Amino acid sequence: MRNFDEDNITQAVLDRLSGCTDPRMRRISEALVRHLHAFVKEIEPSEEEWAGAITFLTRTGQMCSDTRQEFILLSDTLGVSMLVDAINHRFDEGATQTTVLGPFYVEEARDFPLGAHIAHESDGPGLIVEGTIEDSRGNPIAGALIETWHADDRGFYDVQRDTGKSALDMRARFHTDQEGRFWYRSVVPAAYPIPNDGPVGAMLDAQGRHPFRPAHVHFKLSAPGFETIVTHVFIDGDPYLDSDVVFGVKDALITNLSRIEGRVSPGGHEVESRTSLIAYRFVLPDKTIS
Amino acid sequence: MRNFDEDNITQAVLDRLSGCTDPRMRRISEALVRHLHAFVKEIEPSEEEWAGAITFLTRTGQMCSDTRQEFILLSDTLGVSMLVDAINHRFDEGATQTTVLGPFYVEEARDFPLGAHIAHESDGPGLIVEGTIEDSRGNPIAGALIETWHADDRGFYDVQRDTGKSALDMRARFHTDQEGRFWYRSVVPAAYPIPNDGPVGAMLDAQGRHPFRPAHVHFKLSAPGFETIVTHVFIDGDPYLDSDVVFGVKDALITNLSRIEGRVSPGGHEVESRTSLIAYRFVLPDKTIS
Repeated sequence: MRNFDEDNITQAVLDRLSGCTDPRMRRISEALVRHLHAFVKEIEPSEEEWAGAITFLTRTGQMCSDTRQEFILLSDTLGVSMLVDAINHRFDEGATQTTVLGPFYVEEARDFPLGAHIAHESDGPGLIVEGTIEDSRGNPIAGALIETWHADDRGFYDVQRDTGKSALDMRARFHTDQEGRFWYRSVVPAAYPIPNDGPVGAMLDAQGRHPFRPAHVHFKLSAPGFETIVTHVFIDGDPYLDSDVVFGVKDALITNLSRIEGRVSPGGHEVESRTSLIAYRFVLPDKTIS
Repeated sequence: MRNFDEDNITQAVLDRLSGCTDPRMRRISEALVRHLHAFVKEIEPSEEEWAGAITFLTRTGQMCSDTRQEFILLSDTLGVSMLVDAINHRFDEGATQTTVLGPFYVEEARDFPLGAHIAHESDGPGLIVEGTIEDSRGNPIAGALIETWHADDRGFYDVQRDTGKSALDMRARFHTDQEGRFWYRSVVPAAYPIPNDGPVGAMLDAQGRHPFRPAHVHFKLSAPGFETIVTHVFIDGDPYLDSDVVFGVKDALITNLSRIEGRVSPGGHEVESRTSLIAYRFVLPDKTIS
């Protein structure tokens, strides 16, 4: 086959995939070619525009490091991460709703004992997080793994500091007790702009969009026999709840940030004066057979 | 807006673009969101598959350097570069047909006098290239700029050697003489696999595709008052003419590699014995008003 033009190139590329022996790879490749060609045919890019797209993608890849994932930001800000999340969580009613992982998850977070204070480099307002993890029948799940991470009171994650991954902060792993409970002390996180000094920030500018996310705490929750849940808990009243740049907000994930009166939290833990509380009841779905 | 799911996320992202004041940026962004979401909805990627896509794109960006452009390779091997080329060259009949720029174009090539030998680091079989550049009425174009580059007899470009861009070879700029002619000496280029030690090579493997391009010489031709042409001349008889991995072959761009008998080329230039000839008549289209 030779002499490809606008009318025959798409089928030619599809024909070239006929030797693909992995059916899933073939299906994905065929769909990619069809949708990508349809996009290009619709917008009819100039050669300068297509070269600009190549440069944009190249810069996006080269912005990535061990503490920054610009392609996840791109997927998040185009709503694709939430779409993939929705496709993969057609769960039972009653389980905790899911949302995006985001670009700041770090696998190497440390284990802490329940109750630990996990914010060492921030002197923001005090916070206690009190959660329970249950199954869909209301039974507590003991020994469940909680991975949690959040921004400081100025809206920055640990890995955005000069120390990068060498000084993890506001980031920890816990396990629930026999009653399915976990709790830890930290600082109240602030709303923040996603990192906008790279290609994704330039894209948002060009699209006339703000780069902000409402204040939230991330959770990744897992336990044997249950589906893993990746989610956030958002703080009610945040001005960005209705315009989250990554489309991650769900009403069921919003909770009040309440001020604790006195020196004992609702969960029975001693706290300093003026400590705020985030409390949330998480429900893990039973593992689906796949 | 909150609570995004498979049914409402696409429209939500489109709505978010309503503040985009650049109509072209808005049109491109909207089309990107619609086609990208349609692709994801069709293939329903698992979270592992989508994470794999993020990793693939990240590695593709990080494979790029000043001598390698992996995203151009991706665009080329998915047939998108030829599609963009076709969309942008709906020219007058009679002009030379165009094809992909490819990933090995280098802006910093040197000027040479007509007739120069441009292969210094290869001892492959001798070649003389003799071309003319004319307008669509058959008038020679004097002083036209020729940028030309090609692989050696083993299928490697200069920038693929250890010396990178520091020792450009088989790559030059010339200007046509008063009769619109140019000629230079080099070595016969071989068919070659595109660089396949990166993500694009892995993709081709997974798709069951070979990575080869048929032997060719690249040309970028420009002159005041004419549209710039980016094209190749292919060598007839190559086994990959019908399966070029980047879909770049057009019959009108194929020419014989003829062996010159004696010591004088058809263009009247002295050559060594057993020199091969590539001759081609290029026609530049008049500049379109845009």
